[in-house]
Amino acid sequence: MQEECAEETAKKQFYTLEGEVVLENGQRLPGVTVAYETWGTLNADKSNAILICHALTGDSHAVGGNGTPGWWDTMVGPGRGIDTDRYFVICSNILGGCMGTTGPASINPVTGKPYGTDFPVVTIHDMVQVQAALVDSLGIDRLHAVIGGSVGGMQVLSWCKNYPERVGSAVALATTMRHSALSIAFNEVARQSIISDPNWNEGHYYGGAKPSMGLSVARMVGHITYLSDEAMRQKFGRRLQHRDEFAFDFDAEFQVESYLHYQGAKFVDRFDANSLLYITKAADYFDIEPGFQESGALERMAELRHPFLVVSFTSDWLYPTYQNREIVSLFKRHGVDVSFCEIEASCGHDAFLLPSDRLTTILTGFLGKGTHA
Amino acid sequence: MQEECAEETAKKQFYTLEGEVVLENGQRLPGVTVAYETWGTLNADKSNAILICHALTGDSHAVGGNGTPGWWDTMVGPGRGIDTDRYFVICSNILGGCMGTTGPASINPVTGKPYGTDFPVVTIHDMVQVQAALVDSLGIDRLHAVIGGSVGGMQVLSWCKNYPERVGSAVALATTMRHSALSIAFNEVARQSIISDPNWNEGHYYGGAKPSMGLSVARMVGHITYLSDEAMRQKFGRRLQHRDEFAFDFDAEFQVESYLHYQGAKFVDRFDANSLLYITKAADYFDIEPGFQESGALERMAELRHPFLVVSFTSDWLYPTYQNREIVSLFKRHGVDVSFCEIEASCGHDAFLLPSDRLTTILTGFLGKGTHA
Repeated sequence: MQEECAEETAKKQFYTLEGEVVLENGQRLPGVTVAYETWGTLNADKSNAILICHALTGDSHAVGGNGTPGWWDTMVGPGRGIDTDRYFVICSNILGGCMGTTGPASINPVTGKPYGTDFPVVTIHDMVQVQAALVDSLGIDRLHAVIGGSVGGMQVLSWCKNYPERVGSAVALATTMRHSALSIAFNEVARQSIISDPNWNEGHYYGGAKPSMGLSVARMVGHITYLSDEAMRQKFGRRLQHRDEFAFDFDAEFQVESYLHYQGAKFVDRFDANSLLYITKAADYFDIEPGFQESGALERMAELRHPFLVVSFTSDWLYPTYQNREIVSLFKRHGVDVSFCEIEASCGHDAFLLPSDRLTTILTGFLGKGTHA
Repeated sequence: MQEECAEETAKKQFYTLEGEVVLENGQRLPGVTVAYETWGTLNADKSNAILICHALTGDSHAVGGNGTPGWWDTMVGPGRGIDTDRYFVICSNILGGCMGTTGPASINPVTGKPYGTDFPVVTIHDMVQVQAALVDSLGIDRLHAVIGGSVGGMQVLSWCKNYPERVGSAVALATTMRHSALSIAFNEVARQSIISDPNWNEGHYYGGAKPSMGLSVARMVGHITYLSDEAMRQKFGRRLQHRDEFAFDFDAEFQVESYLHYQGAKFVDRFDANSLLYITKAADYFDIEPGFQESGALERMAELRHPFLVVSFTSDWLYPTYQNREIVSLFKRHGVDVSFCEIEASCGHDAFLLPSDRLTTILTGFLGKGTHA
């Protein structure tokens, strides 16, 4: 019954902001639409809402429904770590994305054609600004919690900086407060792979052939950074896909090659190349420490006693534990109630999306702490 | 005087093998030419020769001369770690390369045109077979030492397996005895980047436009794996190249992006895309342990008391210390006189090519041990 109910409420909805969004780069974006989904029921005093922020290439479909699985089914749902019997859970597609929220594939009202690279370069701050407008539209003043991993964790930090009063508690998983040179380097390789594809056509490829080859290679690079040396050894080792002997040609023959090809091909079907450019750029620009220090938001969080939780994973080399610890140190220096946990996991950065009893226990406990739900 | 003398002998020479080379995949390759350079003087009993094996994209020019620096000037030369006043040093370009030795850009005698991807897929074993023929041609029966890092280290291991009597001693730096899934994954991304470039044209692009965009992105990926998180933080951090503020566009603006673009562009000028396909494939195929165990070569090395040295670097995540230690364990299990040293270095895999007093001291000491020079 509860499952059906969850499915019932999981249909994608759309909210269009009034007026223009003033972006961090000074440009103005009119008619921004946000695609979102909700699960559970908002209580009478609207105090049980949890906002989930998705990562780089995620979408609003955090929980399965309408015949498709959700990207965080292991954590969100009735009776799960983020319990939709108890909380009203919201997840929206980020600005610049391609899963229903306004992005480079959307129609530019000035030209009547897709923006392409005429779409303004957006930041994590801009994404969060749009999320806040959505939360407003739902009549929710203060969120019980804002939760996200990876690029979603950056959004969590941006929420705390911009709206410390509105964030009752927050959880950042496998993330960083400033994108490192290594992470920028991987993102730039992904972008250059797309830009080098002749079909990219300076970003104006809609209606024609897509830069699928470049996007596929970009995704392959991404997938390497989501795993770990150990995970790859366990998962693939040096096993061949179909044969016992080497083929002595350039087709994919190791299982790890086939895996990457499959991930690349699958991604091309579901994701827009320009969106990957924009979202990786937003991540690269992310460096919240200076703004956080100046904003007074940390002091405000400390004053309000809004708790914060940081979780890292041992084999995550994209946003390693030391980068997660930097967030903890910053928060501690300003007296914020911050907890930290490093979870033993061999599967690399992806660990935050995979089933983990430890993470479930930690999240359940944290969300129940001083709950208003 | 010595410097001049070293320059004098550093001119690139060529040796063409008689007959055909029978490759590991069973194919036969006629008219193989090897480009090589030598420094120092071969002594009367021909017991002071050292063979240096270059890495992925290196060449025979290990020591500077003829107006260009060498890729291992910090280690090889008069009075240096590998002392050309004392040893006769040989370095040849590997089979499948593009720096003078026969490779995919060479003329296929059957068609009178460049091989392209009609060139047979070669292995590390094949490269070493060709080096052994070159060493024969110089009248050298036993090498005082064979030394190489990374893919060069794989060649060192292959020398030991195939010619244990001929390898008086050997040094493998920053390498592995079997290419890991992670390393295969990075190589496959590099290959797919090249193959996705429409100019690649199934490998038959000679005389036309080159797959420069794809090759450039491939090189960018490579360079990330040669550095380390720490090295990138120290070297680039989040510094911008030209401005104080973000440009909000997709041009390279972080210093790390400019660095990668520069490395990509520079590489396209000097290296052939097909050679990168072939050499990365040879590395991926490399898994010497089973053959080593079966060959009896380890027992022979132990019997002859030919010493072996393995050196790893703490921040090398392409061929991490644990992979270098696996070589040591294998050799120890078979009674080979093997020494191991892990050098503290923050600069990643590239450390083996960078100036290091520690490495120089270790190498000098090792080469002097039971020397015949």
